[in-house]
Amino acid sequence: MSNSSQTLPEILNKSVAACSRFFKIETLQLKFSNGEQREFERMQSSNQGAVLVVPFYDKETILLIREYAAGTHSYELGFPKGLIDPGETPLEAANRELKEEVGFGAKEFIELKKVVMAPSYFSSEMTLFMAKDLYPESLIGDEPEPLEVIKWPLDKADELLNRDDFQEARSISALLWVLKNDT
Amino acid sequence: MSNSSQTLPEILNKSVAACSRFFKIETLQLKFSNGEQREFERMQSSNQGAVLVVPFYDKETILLIREYAAGTHSYELGFPKGLIDPGETPLEAANRELKEEVGFGAKEFIELKKVVMAPSYFSSEMTLFMAKDLYPESLIGDEPEPLEVIKWPLDKADELLNRDDFQEARSISALLWVLKNDT
Repeated sequence: MSNSSQTLPEILNKSVAACSRFFKIETLQLKFSNGEQREFERMQSSNQGAVLVVPFYDKETILLIREYAAGTHSYELGFPKGLIDPGETPLEAANRELKEEVGFGAKEFIELKKVVMAPSYFSSEMTLFMAKDLYPESLIGDEPEPLEVIKWPLDKADELLNRDDFQEARSISALLWVLKNDT
Repeated sequence: MSNSSQTLPEILNKSVAACSRFFKIETLQLKFSNGEQREFERMQSSNQGAVLVVPFYDKETILLIREYAAGTHSYELGFPKGLIDPGETPLEAANRELKEEVGFGAKEFIELKKVVMAPSYFSSEMTLFMAKDLYPESLIGDEPEPLEVIKWPLDKADELLNRDDFQEARSISALLWVLKNDT
């Protein structure tokens, strides 16, 4: 259970390797503290981070959405989520996404954990929330088609966790976190 | 708890938006079943998927590694992981990564779950494993510096989950999955 802090490698050089409308890939020349030099590629993050919300419809029921995912070209089950807009706090973004994607706001948000994905390549941070005490309120989102909202009983969480279309690591982290701490 | 299968959008056109040594970004022209047309970008996956292993050093202790992550330019705690090489099964890759990154092989592997990350943009799949009955065996990996291996008592899992340098969604999913099913 060491707490040693290693010396970060020195960034000798940084350049843009490729750039599209949404993505920017950076090449890093790194020198590690042992003298070893390596070239790494990483994705440059242009956004303010993202949020994901586990909404409690009532004490025994959570809400899911089913949404098209272009990366896998499939419909996936998961929790409402989205990017934080400029000027928004994570909490404001969480409430806005909830209103846009499931048609509810929430009076109570509990922050669970800040997570990243594949930090060797990406820096984008996502704050996971649990939302309680919902009230009906809709905002228009930018989805190409209406999202399907699904009520899922918490006591059938295992069935959800074992589904092939519930496979996003951040949704799984959020659900398991809620189950560990709330039941 | 609907099981409706929505009609997948039609891919009208596909083109390469940008390309680097490691990444290939694709532009998709999509037509949704309601007639709505949109342009999406996604990362094309060139690999065979990846594996991540929660190694049990003994019944009460798991092994972690501390590794430099270029995306966040920080040292991060997590589980041994890596890409599946051509011709390898996920299980063979899991045992190889374990030998390369922590200096142990394992006699027993239990598959926990296949996960993806941000499937709106990526398709890469990672198989999460739990490994038991370890035996010492090392393979040389391609790391630029030796990885620090850390023994962590399972009864201090909460402390780990709350650390700022244990934040990778796939590591968190794997640990919470193990805790839910094994304790």
